[in-house]
Amino acid sequence: MSSSIDAATRLERGRRMFERSIGGSAQAFIDGIAAVAPDFGPLILEWEFADVYSRDTIDLKTREIVILAACAALGATGADAVKLHVKAALRAGVTREQIAEILMQVGFAAGLPAALCAIGAVKAAFAEMDASDTNG
Amino acid sequence: MSSSIDAATRLERGRRMFERSIGGSAQAFIDGIAAVAPDFGPLILEWEFADVYSRDTIDLKTREIVILAACAALGATGADAVKLHVKAALRAGVTREQIAEILMQVGFAAGLPAALCAIGAVKAAFAEMDASDTNG
Amino acid sequence: MSSSIDAATRLERGRRMFERSIGGSAQAFIDGIAAVAPDFGPLILEWEFADVYSRDTIDLKTREIVILAACAALGATGADAVKLHVKAALRAGVTREQIAEILMQVGFAAGLPAALCAIGAVKAAFAEMDASDTNG
Amino acid sequence: MSSSIDAATRLERGRRMFERSIGGSAQAFIDGIAAVAPDFGPLILEWEFADVYSRDTIDLKTREIVILAACAALGATGADAVKLHVKAALRAGVTREQIAEILMQVGFAAGLPAALCAIGAVKAAFAEMDASDTNG
Amino acid sequence: MSSSIDAATRLERGRRMFERSIGGSAQAFIDGIAAVAPDFGPLILEWEFADVYSRDTIDLKTREIVILAACAALGATGADAVKLHVKAALRAGVTREQIAEILMQVGFAAGLPAALCAIGAVKAAFAEMDASDTNG
Amino acid sequence: MSSSIDAATRLERGRRMFERSIGGSAQAFIDGIAAVAPDFGPLILEWEFADVYSRDTIDLKTREIVILAACAALGATGADAVKLHVKAALRAGVTREQIAEILMQVGFAAGLPAALCAIGAVKAAFAEMDASDTNG
Repeated sequence: MSSSIDAATRLERGRRMFERSIGGSAQAFIDGIAAVAPDFGPLILEWEFADVYSRDTIDLKTREIVILAACAALGATGADAVKLHVKAALRAGVTREQIAEILMQVGFAAGLPAALCAIGAVKAAFAEMDASDTNG
Repeated sequence: MSSSIDAATRLERGRRMFERSIGGSAQAFIDGIAAVAPDFGPLILEWEFADVYSRDTIDLKTREIVILAACAALGATGADAVKLHVKAALRAGVTREQIAEILMQVGFAAGLPAALCAIGAVKAAFAEMDASDTNG
Repeated sequence: MSSSIDAATRLERGRRMFERSIGGSAQAFIDGIAAVAPDFGPLILEWEFADVYSRDTIDLKTREIVILAACAALGATGADAVKLHVKAALRAGVTREQIAEILMQVGFAAGLPAALCAIGAVKAAFAEMDASDTNG
Repeated sequence: MSSSIDAATRLERGRRMFERSIGGSAQAFIDGIAAVAPDFGPLILEWEFADVYSRDTIDLKTREIVILAACAALGATGADAVKLHVKAALRAGVTREQIAEILMQVGFAAGLPAALCAIGAVKAAFAEMDASDTNG
Repeated sequence: MSSSIDAATRLERGRRMFERSIGGSAQAFIDGIAAVAPDFGPLILEWEFADVYSRDTIDLKTREIVILAACAALGATGADAVKLHVKAALRAGVTREQIAEILMQVGFAAGLPAALCAIGAVKAAFAEMDASDTNG
Repeated sequence: MSSSIDAATRLERGRRMFERSIGGSAQAFIDGIAAVAPDFGPLILEWEFADVYSRDTIDLKTREIVILAACAALGATGADAVKLHVKAALRAGVTREQIAEILMQVGFAAGLPAALCAIGAVKAAFAEMDASDTNG
């Protein structure tokens, strides 16, 4: 039965979904937290990327918009996640202007300091991407 | 003086946008907080609904998805806003299944208790709408 | 021993400051949480009301404004504290109009849902006070 | 291979772990949110209860203390989770006095209003349990 | 058309109020976020500084106290805003001792880590100001 | 007068408890915030370390677990406190593996970005400790 997917398969599916959506290395994500929590990276890939990202109730573009909005609402706590998902959002077809619009709307929900934290993270992501384009 | 005339125009534009998107009475929204802050309702209508909702960088459906995700991330603080905007999201073409998917994704960003607060608010909104359909 | 005598003195000072600023019974505050945490109420009275409220670096009116602003920024979590301190703020000379202005300003910092949570708490406090005035 | 556990098995393991730790019906938990998000309850049981609760790096008593502390720190957002896990903590051997001590310590981390939200939830849980003991 | 003229007037009023209260360049504030959200800076100046700061229900000193308290309660998310508004508060007549007192009081509402985040931001602001005084 | 003598005693008790649990200098903690709030460090030592840490309702190991869980749930706001208390937790007998398990469990309560903020703080603490071991 197709639901009988073992843990190794789920992790593999999570890795592929992470790399297809985010565009970076899933192993680098795992390695980044392995010095503290070696089991946590693989579990996040299984839960978020294999079990949920793969669902097609909303398309990937909408999913990245949801993540940007929710993480922007978290302010400083969500800044790293915003920075990571800016690239995923652009890959999924969200424009830079739309990212700005999303953050402005989040400002009403979570306050201006939270929106400005997210804008700082997006600014850093844009700068990295533009530097990489120039160097590439 | 043109300034006060223009403020009235912005407020009028905000009222229309509120009623077109949310589907309820803008005056009821103003009245609901007037016993404490009579100037705040009109200002919210001007800022959020006249100045920002009217922008077409993202469409209304996307905007309502952003608001649901951001307010769900606020947990108990955002529950009333989630309840209000569930109706706006459905009017804009978001399905009930997609609302569930959005809240599940927010669970990763803001935690399960925040997602469950939002689900409670959505459940109440669905119940009100279904009761109203039955009675109507 | 002088230590226990002094603790009693601090608690007594905390009780008096609580009752002078909030206007309600310090014992009722202690009793309200005693079924769960009987030592916590007395410690809060000592820390917040004996050790800090009694300091005159800022006057009581300013202190109540600080508390309203900070608790309003906490949204749903701060709502009960906002309700309690509305009465203290009015006793200290803050007007109802100024409370509204404070909450509007907090809306920029913490978002509109947080400000609306606080407004709901203030509305309930005003209603209780007005009902009490009418009945009294 | 033992890691080749299928989804049905994981869900079943999650249900058993939920019922063993929390002491209530896993199906009631699923049903409580099914009107909005029918897939979310089963996924939470798999992720939190099958994948993580079953790990023995910390014992169940310590895990419930962690959950109480983290959910208390969330204030109003965490109140329902605090109420649910109070019963689990008591079942795992945490005493009522220790729950109070945990919440007092959380007050330093998350503020007094957050601690008081948690105390309100614990008070409600204690009252339900004591009423049930009397009636039973 | 009068609408665009009036918007320009509001923006101009917002710029003047920003510079009078904060003491820095409004254009620098706009430019700081323009790489991501070029329309957001002007809108913030209109909403917060033209529409609300100009109201005299509370005086500028009280308003800056409200902002410090609310942003301090946001912890890491509010740290940049605290740093910006420390200077505004001092310009409006709040003393350094009073800023410390405000943050101590916020510690009860939002927890010690939030208060310590704000203290870190104030420490950085004081250091910049003292270095500038020495160099000036 | 006995009151000031007793305050000195409480402060002294707080210092000893801070140094016994955290393992660093209580004076360094006071000095770190004295440029902004010279009275706040001593008061924190009295309230948290003399009045509460000294209570034996829960043992020191459990108390440090509570603090880690609550501060991790605060995300970016709690990161410095997590970093400080990692060392206290290890001293009290919590293992590195258990700290990871605690943070994974907090991820369900407060979301993955909050857990990842805490993991970043723990990673920095581990790196400092390991560098110090190598150099020592």
